[in-house]
Amino acid sequence: MNTKQIIIRKREGDELSERELRFLVEGFISGEIPDYQMAAFLMAVYFQGMSFDETYLLTKIMIESGQRVNLNHLDKLPIDKHSTGGVGDKVSLILAPLVSSAGVAVPMISGRGLGHSGGTLDKLEAIPGFRTNLTINEFINQIEEIGVAMIGQTAEIVPADRKIYALRDSTGTIASIPLVVASILSKKIAEGAKALVLDIKTGKGAFFRTQENAMTLAERLIAISEKFGLGTTALMTKMDQPLGYAVGNWLETREAIDTLKGRGPRDVLDITLALGAEMLYQAKIVDNIVLGQEKLTHLLESGIAFEKFLILVEAQGGNVSLIENPDQYLKSKYDLTIFSERDGYIRSIDALKIGLLSMEIGAGRKKMSDQVDYVAGILLQKKVGEPIRKGDPLAKIFYSKEISSIYLKKEIHDAIEIGDELHQTPPLILKYFNKKGMSDW
Amino acid sequence: MNTKQIIIRKREGDELSERELRFLVEGFISGEIPDYQMAAFLMAVYFQGMSFDETYLLTKIMIESGQRVNLNHLDKLPIDKHSTGGVGDKVSLILAPLVSSAGVAVPMISGRGLGHSGGTLDKLEAIPGFRTNLTINEFINQIEEIGVAMIGQTAEIVPADRKIYALRDSTGTIASIPLVVASILSKKIAEGAKALVLDIKTGKGAFFRTQENAMTLAERLIAISEKFGLGTTALMTKMDQPLGYAVGNWLETREAIDTLKGRGPRDVLDITLALGAEMLYQAKIVDNIVLGQEKLTHLLESGIAFEKFLILVEAQGGNVSLIENPDQYLKSKYDLTIFSERDGYIRSIDALKIGLLSMEIGAGRKKMSDQVDYVAGILLQKKVGEPIRKGDPLAKIFYSKEISSIYLKKEIHDAIEIGDELHQTPPLILKYFNKKGMSDW
Repeated sequence: MNTKQIIIRKREGDELSERELRFLVEGFISGEIPDYQMAAFLMAVYFQGMSFDETYLLTKIMIESGQRVNLNHLDKLPIDKHSTGGVGDKVSLILAPLVSSAGVAVPMISGRGLGHSGGTLDKLEAIPGFRTNLTINEFINQIEEIGVAMIGQTAEIVPADRKIYALRDSTGTIASIPLVVASILSKKIAEGAKALVLDIKTGKGAFFRTQENAMTLAERLIAISEKFGLGTTALMTKMDQPLGYAVGNWLETREAIDTLKGRGPRDVLDITLALGAEMLYQAKIVDNIVLGQEKLTHLLESGIAFEKFLILVEAQGGNVSLIENPDQYLKSKYDLTIFSERDGYIRSIDALKIGLLSMEIGAGRKKMSDQVDYVAGILLQKKVGEPIRKGDPLAKIFYSKEISSIYLKKEIHDAIEIGDELHQTPPLILKYFNKKGMSDW
Repeated sequence: MNTKQIIIRKREGDELSERELRFLVEGFISGEIPDYQMAAFLMAVYFQGMSFDETYLLTKIMIESGQRVNLNHLDKLPIDKHSTGGVGDKVSLILAPLVSSAGVAVPMISGRGLGHSGGTLDKLEAIPGFRTNLTINEFINQIEEIGVAMIGQTAEIVPADRKIYALRDSTGTIASIPLVVASILSKKIAEGAKALVLDIKTGKGAFFRTQENAMTLAERLIAISEKFGLGTTALMTKMDQPLGYAVGNWLETREAIDTLKGRGPRDVLDITLALGAEMLYQAKIVDNIVLGQEKLTHLLESGIAFEKFLILVEAQGGNVSLIENPDQYLKSKYDLTIFSERDGYIRSIDALKIGLLSMEIGAGRKKMSDQVDYVAGILLQKKVGEPIRKGDPLAKIFYSKEISSIYLKKEIHDAIEIGDELHQTPPLILKYFNKKGMSDW
């Protein structure tokens, strides 16, 4: 087989066979196919897409590139959650201990933040001592013992994805639906999940900004995971303003702690309960979604979910006393409060701008090798729809780099639009998808 | 500036600035931009194209990547010819000495064959001793002394093209109009040509198979070279059957010798005279194309053009006695004649199939590093439109590799279609382009 011919076939929009896809993926991992040919192939896929069969086969070949965790022996159904990413999305930190405290097994593999978007792994690592690099055996043992484990990608699970993702990241080929589908599902299936809930973000701060693209992604994710025997449901949710008030790793972990104690922001809580109730329903712990939400609300309000988070943090070596007393966390060198210059109502908060600003002050990464400052971040003081008066605080910024406060002030004012009147804010959760199709939420 | 952002901008169809294009090309040459990012960029260009301005700027930046030959001191106008390539195209070997004998200066830089397509450089190097790697000073001196020099690409002239072309070749991004335009014109301008005639091939054996693509290419080549101050005309010619009877390096050089002696095949002669008359007209040696063709015919028939070829071969170290006595050339280990199995008329000869077969028997290259067998090749015995009887020879094959004669026979019969009736064959030269536009030939 000939790599160049395969690239040209994809460039021309032909459907590739399993043999051709395997030749490419395996050749790329072994180093026989150079990264420049793979990069050209990925860009051709960006433009020409992949058929259902090609996407399924690529996912399968990627799973087969590494080890596959077997969790069939558990008495609980292992279910994972995935979000396509955004700004202020700390839902995984809440959801994993929460649904685990309700009896779902949660084998969760998460990623790091990049660009404007945060990553669960960085938020977990903001907890001093928290180990996200468990071995596969430690991962399995911990799920057996406490029902939940949260780790980063390992060298053993889907090595093809690590190498392909790094190349996509530097060649502008991230936002390709078949490549996203294969990347997400290969890891979820290899980590041993038997069902999946997905949070497909759409809007300014999302990778797939249009609802049309987000819908195509959701439908393709569900159809392919169905073919692998996973029960999968997806919610399409808005990522126009950041989720919650906190953007930045420790600030978000802290907001997750508040939510686990029943004191979380409305939007964070709504998405957590919606996704969590799906997980409980799939695990046959509840008979319907309403009962699921009630059960989860009780677990949050009773402190049971928070207790489970403490158990998780302890199991992975994190500093539990800081979770119990978050005020003792390290402080940033600087903090700056930005005040409103007028009366009105918050009209919009640009998630992309807030995400990029948070990256600039040290909370995120421009490139994968950058270090993250866990304490840096932006704490919004208002959300869209809230009234504000001139002189009220709009946002607090925590940072330790030398940055002009005039610049920070300008960026916050650019990102937050204040109007004279209160407008109806669109719903947060837009659509619901399962194997039977799509409906409004 | 950020390479990934430039790739994404091109992927989205944005127009890039001179600064961005220069950053990319210079960064790629210096090694700061890795080949995988350049490969992704080239594939994005394949899909999104480039504007007129972008194509002009890319050409300019590529020229500036190396040395530029200055031929302004010559008393003759330096004019070059370029063909987009095909099967059996030995026109450059005839045209360069021919128009040089008429008083045009010819600074010609040619390429090697790849895939089904042959290259002038290989045909020249089939002549023992012929040096195609003159230094720039030798190149200039020879043009001053005898008015013509034929060389390969040097390290000094447009190094950016060498590196980009090699990457395009292995990533399926050859057939992109802006990239082809920048590659051709950067070399022609850097070699010192002041005018240009182009042979834009279309049909089965061409790189741009459809007339629509070939027309776009011709128009873009003319518009961009106009912007650089070059007078350029182009012919669009058919490459459905091979040009002439000979396919393979020495066979083609020999057919070029025959043509230089006034005994060439009709189609080879027609294209040579058409392109040559344009060159004479541009050099103001004749007042119109008809006079140009008459002058060139005289130079061929009188032996003056052939004499010039001998001078050229001698100047570049080639074995002149072999040109005078071509029968003394090395023979291939095997030769095989394939006979017609029926009566009829030659309906079509598939240039692509013949080109690929010629590559397989050793006359061409699968990849750039392959060695070429100069004596290998296919000598057609009939052309499209000629009558044939059962048992008449269709083609002779010369080769030195171990190949099944049954296979060779099958391939020739597959490539040559014989019909019952004589069909009207379409004209060889289809269109004429200059800066004022396009017309039928």
